[in-house]
Amino acid sequence: MPDPRTPLPDSRVSPRFAGLVTFARYPRLTDLTPAPSAASPLDWLIYGVPFDAGVTYRPGARFAPRAIRDASQYLKRYHVEHAVDICNTLAMADAGDAPVRPYSCRENTQAVAAWAAALPGGPPTNPPTRLLALGGDHSIALANLRATHTRLGAPKPGLPLIHFDAHLDTVDAVWGEQYSHASPFIRAIEEGLIDPTRMVSLGIRGPLNTPADLDFARQHNATIITYEDWRYRNGQQTLAAALAKIADTPAYLTFDIDALDPAYAPATGTPCPGGFTTAEALHALRSLRGLNIAGADVVEVLPDRDPTGTTAFLAAHIAFEILALDAARRTARPPTA
Amino acid sequence: MPDPRTPLPDSRVSPRFAGLVTFARYPRLTDLTPAPSAASPLDWLIYGVPFDAGVTYRPGARFAPRAIRDASQYLKRYHVEHAVDICNTLAMADAGDAPVRPYSCRENTQAVAAWAAALPGGPPTNPPTRLLALGGDHSIALANLRATHTRLGAPKPGLPLIHFDAHLDTVDAVWGEQYSHASPFIRAIEEGLIDPTRMVSLGIRGPLNTPADLDFARQHNATIITYEDWRYRNGQQTLAAALAKIADTPAYLTFDIDALDPAYAPATGTPCPGGFTTAEALHALRSLRGLNIAGADVVEVLPDRDPTGTTAFLAAHIAFEILALDAARRTARPPTA
Amino acid sequence: MPDPRTPLPDSRVSPRFAGLVTFARYPRLTDLTPAPSAASPLDWLIYGVPFDAGVTYRPGARFAPRAIRDASQYLKRYHVEHAVDICNTLAMADAGDAPVRPYSCRENTQAVAAWAAALPGGPPTNPPTRLLALGGDHSIALANLRATHTRLGAPKPGLPLIHFDAHLDTVDAVWGEQYSHASPFIRAIEEGLIDPTRMVSLGIRGPLNTPADLDFARQHNATIITYEDWRYRNGQQTLAAALAKIADTPAYLTFDIDALDPAYAPATGTPCPGGFTTAEALHALRSLRGLNIAGADVVEVLPDRDPTGTTAFLAAHIAFEILALDAARRTARPPTA
Amino acid sequence: MPDPRTPLPDSRVSPRFAGLVTFARYPRLTDLTPAPSAASPLDWLIYGVPFDAGVTYRPGARFAPRAIRDASQYLKRYHVEHAVDICNTLAMADAGDAPVRPYSCRENTQAVAAWAAALPGGPPTNPPTRLLALGGDHSIALANLRATHTRLGAPKPGLPLIHFDAHLDTVDAVWGEQYSHASPFIRAIEEGLIDPTRMVSLGIRGPLNTPADLDFARQHNATIITYEDWRYRNGQQTLAAALAKIADTPAYLTFDIDALDPAYAPATGTPCPGGFTTAEALHALRSLRGLNIAGADVVEVLPDRDPTGTTAFLAAHIAFEILALDAARRTARPPTA
Amino acid sequence: MPDPRTPLPDSRVSPRFAGLVTFARYPRLTDLTPAPSAASPLDWLIYGVPFDAGVTYRPGARFAPRAIRDASQYLKRYHVEHAVDICNTLAMADAGDAPVRPYSCRENTQAVAAWAAALPGGPPTNPPTRLLALGGDHSIALANLRATHTRLGAPKPGLPLIHFDAHLDTVDAVWGEQYSHASPFIRAIEEGLIDPTRMVSLGIRGPLNTPADLDFARQHNATIITYEDWRYRNGQQTLAAALAKIADTPAYLTFDIDALDPAYAPATGTPCPGGFTTAEALHALRSLRGLNIAGADVVEVLPDRDPTGTTAFLAAHIAFEILALDAARRTARPPTA
Amino acid sequence: MPDPRTPLPDSRVSPRFAGLVTFARYPRLTDLTPAPSAASPLDWLIYGVPFDAGVTYRPGARFAPRAIRDASQYLKRYHVEHAVDICNTLAMADAGDAPVRPYSCRENTQAVAAWAAALPGGPPTNPPTRLLALGGDHSIALANLRATHTRLGAPKPGLPLIHFDAHLDTVDAVWGEQYSHASPFIRAIEEGLIDPTRMVSLGIRGPLNTPADLDFARQHNATIITYEDWRYRNGQQTLAAALAKIADTPAYLTFDIDALDPAYAPATGTPCPGGFTTAEALHALRSLRGLNIAGADVVEVLPDRDPTGTTAFLAAHIAFEILALDAARRTARPPTA
Repeated sequence: MPDPRTPLPDSRVSPRFAGLVTFARYPRLTDLTPAPSAASPLDWLIYGVPFDAGVTYRPGARFAPRAIRDASQYLKRYHVEHAVDICNTLAMADAGDAPVRPYSCRENTQAVAAWAAALPGGPPTNPPTRLLALGGDHSIALANLRATHTRLGAPKPGLPLIHFDAHLDTVDAVWGEQYSHASPFIRAIEEGLIDPTRMVSLGIRGPLNTPADLDFARQHNATIITYEDWRYRNGQQTLAAALAKIADTPAYLTFDIDALDPAYAPATGTPCPGGFTTAEALHALRSLRGLNIAGADVVEVLPDRDPTGTTAFLAAHIAFEILALDAARRTARPPTA
Repeated sequence: MPDPRTPLPDSRVSPRFAGLVTFARYPRLTDLTPAPSAASPLDWLIYGVPFDAGVTYRPGARFAPRAIRDASQYLKRYHVEHAVDICNTLAMADAGDAPVRPYSCRENTQAVAAWAAALPGGPPTNPPTRLLALGGDHSIALANLRATHTRLGAPKPGLPLIHFDAHLDTVDAVWGEQYSHASPFIRAIEEGLIDPTRMVSLGIRGPLNTPADLDFARQHNATIITYEDWRYRNGQQTLAAALAKIADTPAYLTFDIDALDPAYAPATGTPCPGGFTTAEALHALRSLRGLNIAGADVVEVLPDRDPTGTTAFLAAHIAFEILALDAARRTARPPTA
Repeated sequence: MPDPRTPLPDSRVSPRFAGLVTFARYPRLTDLTPAPSAASPLDWLIYGVPFDAGVTYRPGARFAPRAIRDASQYLKRYHVEHAVDICNTLAMADAGDAPVRPYSCRENTQAVAAWAAALPGGPPTNPPTRLLALGGDHSIALANLRATHTRLGAPKPGLPLIHFDAHLDTVDAVWGEQYSHASPFIRAIEEGLIDPTRMVSLGIRGPLNTPADLDFARQHNATIITYEDWRYRNGQQTLAAALAKIADTPAYLTFDIDALDPAYAPATGTPCPGGFTTAEALHALRSLRGLNIAGADVVEVLPDRDPTGTTAFLAAHIAFEILALDAARRTARPPTA
Repeated sequence: MPDPRTPLPDSRVSPRFAGLVTFARYPRLTDLTPAPSAASPLDWLIYGVPFDAGVTYRPGARFAPRAIRDASQYLKRYHVEHAVDICNTLAMADAGDAPVRPYSCRENTQAVAAWAAALPGGPPTNPPTRLLALGGDHSIALANLRATHTRLGAPKPGLPLIHFDAHLDTVDAVWGEQYSHASPFIRAIEEGLIDPTRMVSLGIRGPLNTPADLDFARQHNATIITYEDWRYRNGQQTLAAALAKIADTPAYLTFDIDALDPAYAPATGTPCPGGFTTAEALHALRSLRGLNIAGADVVEVLPDRDPTGTTAFLAAHIAFEILALDAARRTARPPTA
Repeated sequence: MPDPRTPLPDSRVSPRFAGLVTFARYPRLTDLTPAPSAASPLDWLIYGVPFDAGVTYRPGARFAPRAIRDASQYLKRYHVEHAVDICNTLAMADAGDAPVRPYSCRENTQAVAAWAAALPGGPPTNPPTRLLALGGDHSIALANLRATHTRLGAPKPGLPLIHFDAHLDTVDAVWGEQYSHASPFIRAIEEGLIDPTRMVSLGIRGPLNTPADLDFARQHNATIITYEDWRYRNGQQTLAAALAKIADTPAYLTFDIDALDPAYAPATGTPCPGGFTTAEALHALRSLRGLNIAGADVVEVLPDRDPTGTTAFLAAHIAFEILALDAARRTARPPTA
Repeated sequence: MPDPRTPLPDSRVSPRFAGLVTFARYPRLTDLTPAPSAASPLDWLIYGVPFDAGVTYRPGARFAPRAIRDASQYLKRYHVEHAVDICNTLAMADAGDAPVRPYSCRENTQAVAAWAAALPGGPPTNPPTRLLALGGDHSIALANLRATHTRLGAPKPGLPLIHFDAHLDTVDAVWGEQYSHASPFIRAIEEGLIDPTRMVSLGIRGPLNTPADLDFARQHNATIITYEDWRYRNGQQTLAAALAKIADTPAYLTFDIDALDPAYAPATGTPCPGGFTTAEALHALRSLRGLNIAGADVVEVLPDRDPTGTTAFLAAHIAFEILALDAARRTARPPTA
């Protein structure tokens, strides 16, 4: 067997329940020798953002990066449906946790975005090393979007966005504050980071405080696929049409774990009954095959409400599915963006 | 925006995690000024029945009204699929808990029924203020049915019944006792409160002690839709036909949380594997649109077995869906029964 | 009513929450008078195997027989979909727990297989009393397969196998050890206990360490139905074709609880996101109607990770469904194999 | 080694986590051959009372006999402080569960008392086989007291009582009902079963609804030792004086698990902060050495609120300590009452 | 019996598990008729502060007021050790929750202090109605101290403080922020709200980041009683001496639940092994008898980490003990400050 | 401030809930530059042993090293009672996890001992870098004892042993196996690793299977201090005498978390009611001040049974207390063995 692009510990010596923890047992960025370079870049950096001061209901996502990494020890490398070994295909490392500002969502967004933008593999690396952020509450998506957008050279009109969520997260302000987990995508649209006409939100459902959230999306020509659209109406075709429009443009994928029904992901801050089963969500993710994912996040896991550990384990698995999408894309064409 | 019919606390002052608790932050009945009257009646009163001496297996539902109210703090007011703001449409209040008789199911049924019948908005209010009871075990449905039937003027041949449940609850007696959570609907049929030919039980599944339960339903021309009928056979059409037969007749809706699979509602007294997912149950509920719901209950939540709080939260949400059905009906026609 | 073939305690005296515990309140084997004999044999013996030294990740299944028996107290006897009372149809007893060897998977397999082969109702009883083993980790399937194969007269080319699982369990060795919960079926094929050409694995999904597991199955002409095959492709037809090929041959059914999605069965050792809902798994089981089940097991329940008790209860229910399949088969033809 | 008076399974074959469950792995009463007789009586019968309809707050104790038996599997036989092997000293068996009447505390008390009085080893066996009841709520103490009093020949003026509890349980009536877990000892005094002048309540603490409870005890010359008396004042001397007064008279010991602080026994129906540590309670129990315990109970365990299983395990251990007190007494004098 | 000063619901109609929730079932402030006045003032107002943005480790205390009120339903009114019925002695009401500012500890402190200062019973009521705040994290003590100090007429040199805690909470700043749960008492000293020479911290233990915390206290002549001082050295005498120095001066009592060992109060944000047992803490509290408590708080409960509910229940009980201290003081002298 | 001997991350950048996890945020051994050497050795290496195949009842300790490290993130560096900053005093690092052999206790003991003996800081470093092992079940103590004994030059007659435990762990064999968590100290005595005449076991209590365990200890002149000895008799003096006999000889400290009462450490494999409170155990540990601890372990934590996380956090704290004992010893005399 050829050397894998991402080496893992020898499980004959160190079982999955042993060893210091990194995401999926990937190398720490600081341990790589030689260090990654523009000539020999990494494909993905995974990092955590232990931050939850942007919540409007239940806090606790600050402990999610640790819990997701713990749960990720059981992840394996070969994806059955895509028929790809992601560690043979992708060079990946764990960059640790971003420097957070626990008391201010605005400051935290700035600090995390700046740190992430400066991670190895930014320009001139082309395509840049992609960033997968493990939240934290959904406010951290804005930070990773800023960093991803910057590293891609600030393309206009902003990145296409695939958005799994129960909520639209385009509320203008909560308690007078414009930076919170309710607002990342209104800010991202304002900042030109994402292109609302190529934004697709899947799994949306109510109840809402007001229909204003829906109106905003419609005014910006964003695509909303409610869970009922997906399961009982034409949501899957709507997604396919949106993907066709995105084509090969580098896009961003954000996954709020509350897109899943609370039976599958009880440990989240603003749960919403009536969402995806895990199998449906994985099927939806796998249907993205071909999408050029230039950055991603998995957010809103609250370990303190996860007595069986199911939610953190699911979040780790979703990160794996995202990486597998990129690996699958690469096995069918040259690894360029 | 016009004054809502049900005012809520200003969440800019009192976040959802703050404040003394009523169902969904609705006003207490005793706080309304002016008090509701026949000229200006409420549409719905929500009340709790903290009673569980009717159980045959696991007790604990006495704590459900408190747990459901706590969970309901996160409910919002706008229903996405029905496109209706229930607080703008319906005048609602929380009437507190009924006076229970913790040691006798028979006495409790009498006490709760008498108290509920006398709540504001009975005759001559027409239509009467509707009653949504939060159980308690399923025996409390008989009490709320008696009160609803009385307030409607004791219509013959009894009310149509939409019944979500894993069990038929038509056992004649358990341990020699005719009043328990296994028997509310056999008693209700005997008392003329419901019309078995317009009774539809959805989500039924086994195992059973004997097939006698099924025989009883068939003898009375009741409609049984097992979960397998719903998912894999023609259950949805059967329901549609039954709804057409009910048409606009004031009907009663009873929702035993064990209609859901235990993964979605683990906190219940007599769980039964292989039931509805939440999304399926919500879809079934939403398909009732147009039904004239004259009274309802949500029962059999056991907070002590709910480590993630998912079950109580789901029960609160189902209450919201029931209210939203009524709100949606009213937005399409004059608010008469 | 005729005397049931399996008598249960009178629930008017001893409620389901009362009494010393046996599986589903069936008699203890040692209490039967007269003892079963070749002239008057039992149809099924249920026994536990409290063993978990074969695991590769999380231990704890040694406590499963106790937890499943506790949960089984609530089981009832009449199967709604098959319309059969299993206690009227089948003579069953609980044989207690096998003598385990907690420190060696190889020795345990031998000890349990020898003990189970010698249970009452082996040859010359024809058909032999069938054995339903409650694990324990999946390594115990090899022991019950050996005993079942022996009691059937060691048929060649081995038994057809219906295998519900997330994993294939055909890894040659883990940490140098050939006997573990990752290897029961590679050993069973080598020993001639099962016929790989009539082996069907349902619910398989990844990730895997390597694609070698899939290659092994394909090389032996085994049938793999991934969860995605089942839900989104032609898996159900594939199963039907395999069942047609098996026809009435005595077959073995092994059910790893991790075939279910973790939302339904969180308490398991190597969970895997994206599996069957309970309703789907029960539907798949019920579609086996007609299969001549000569032996079975339900494995990989970890009670310490089951805060709601849902997983152990589900395992008990699956055992009931397996017994009901046999009861249903018998009601349509004479009770011979 | 001599044959033990209570044989246990061979743990070399059946580890403590294996086998069908009886209290502490003792034989089932129905399995003993020869059956116990007046000539060869048992010393103790242990039985369960799965009943909780006498509670005033949290139900759930109906599941305690099962949970305590499960937890008791880990009990061992040699008591370090008393230096006695209880299985060598005492002949014991598990009599299963009493026939309960789940819907009426009054009827249940009668049914359980009658059943227990008739268990093997009543008169003319002298001393009678003693009865250790595993509750159930504290109302079951009245039943076991009646049976014990009857089997002892109804001694006057009633039995001395050692009573571990946070509460006095001498309330006359709750919600108009005289039979509940708040009233067993007022009824027992009225019925002449216990002698209030030789009744000692340890661990009492508040808050109370009224001081009337204390007044009742004082009027009857009962001895109250609050937890603060025990820890910070002269409670231990008070107990010693009371024990001296009781001397060798056959006495009854009732242990409500809420005597312990909630940190040690969270799983109980009416917890009360500020009680015994386990070590203190065991020390108090051990200080009873010499007491002639003619009957006993351990009550008020609620398994549904016991996420670590600590409370049920503690209840099993307390039963062991009670039996060890009797074994220790016998090793120092001839085994007569 | 005379009318109680604080009427409770009739538990013959509404059991403790029934009814809309207020602290200990006391009246809501807004329900009192006539409203309290300077002529007929309340003795105590209890209110919640659902705020946790001041934490340095685990958030979640925002849900504590709700959890403590729920747990408080089981509280009773008569204190055994003080021999006082607090509802007969004190006029009390629940004022609901303060208006919080979830995103800024500094703003929250201002908003809560202003709201609390303006509650009924401030000057000219003399003594003012006392304020018992249910946190929230410990930062809310600063708000309640400000309000209490203001209502007392801003006495100099500030109030004596009795402080139960594992930590000193006199850190100058965390992550550059001077308002957090680590800093309330350094701010209170700076603002002149408390008099450090009459400040006693009980239960202190390490580890610490630096010895600077201890140095600050010593420099200000504050009294530190570590848990080891209390249990193994002369801590109890030190407290008695400090109380003698305080004499009858109106004082403030702040109770951080982490003063207790984590076995007793696991649900807290910064737990610390090796603290008080509940019985020891209650004994310490009871030893304050005679202290003139002019204001108090109970803080740092995190319901999401409280699987048995023990911590919230303990917090409610501590509030009861604080009120009972005041009731006991009044029964021995005229009810003046 | 001088450079600390063990540098920690800057908590102004990386809060305690952030960053990749090592024990107490100490450096990884592999990250140290320059690497430790005989000229500049480390004082302590901490490592994990994720192994639990030596258990006789509940498995799960294989996950303890990970859980203890996670919990240790909240540890701080300054010990209040010893008045020492351990990071300023001691050079420490986390060596990761030992290579385990999950299927054989005998092989695992050999593999771990060999690996640990070869860790940096063995001879000629004098004194050698000390080893603190985080179990794993108690069988791993034998491995760390072997490594420690070897690194010290195999002193005769073996090391003094301070042993906190509920059990003696000197059973010769279980199920025919001489290597298990019941036997580490009988093996260690046989191998000459420890000197039984200077072995002190604290916290011992029953029940036992037989008094043989006690006899073994007495025959070897080991010192047993039961919990009752410690709390109610002269156990503390017995310990002091034993410590005086040990004097400055390099000794080994082994801490089985089940020395604590289950209320404090519920998450353990063979819990035993009636043990130390945490405060008592910490007081006992602190009373060892002056002991020359040459190696240590903390074992028998089972994270799956730790719903509040209290047990893992306590284990981390005990490790801190052990290190603080060494730091305190060094501040009073030259740092030589």
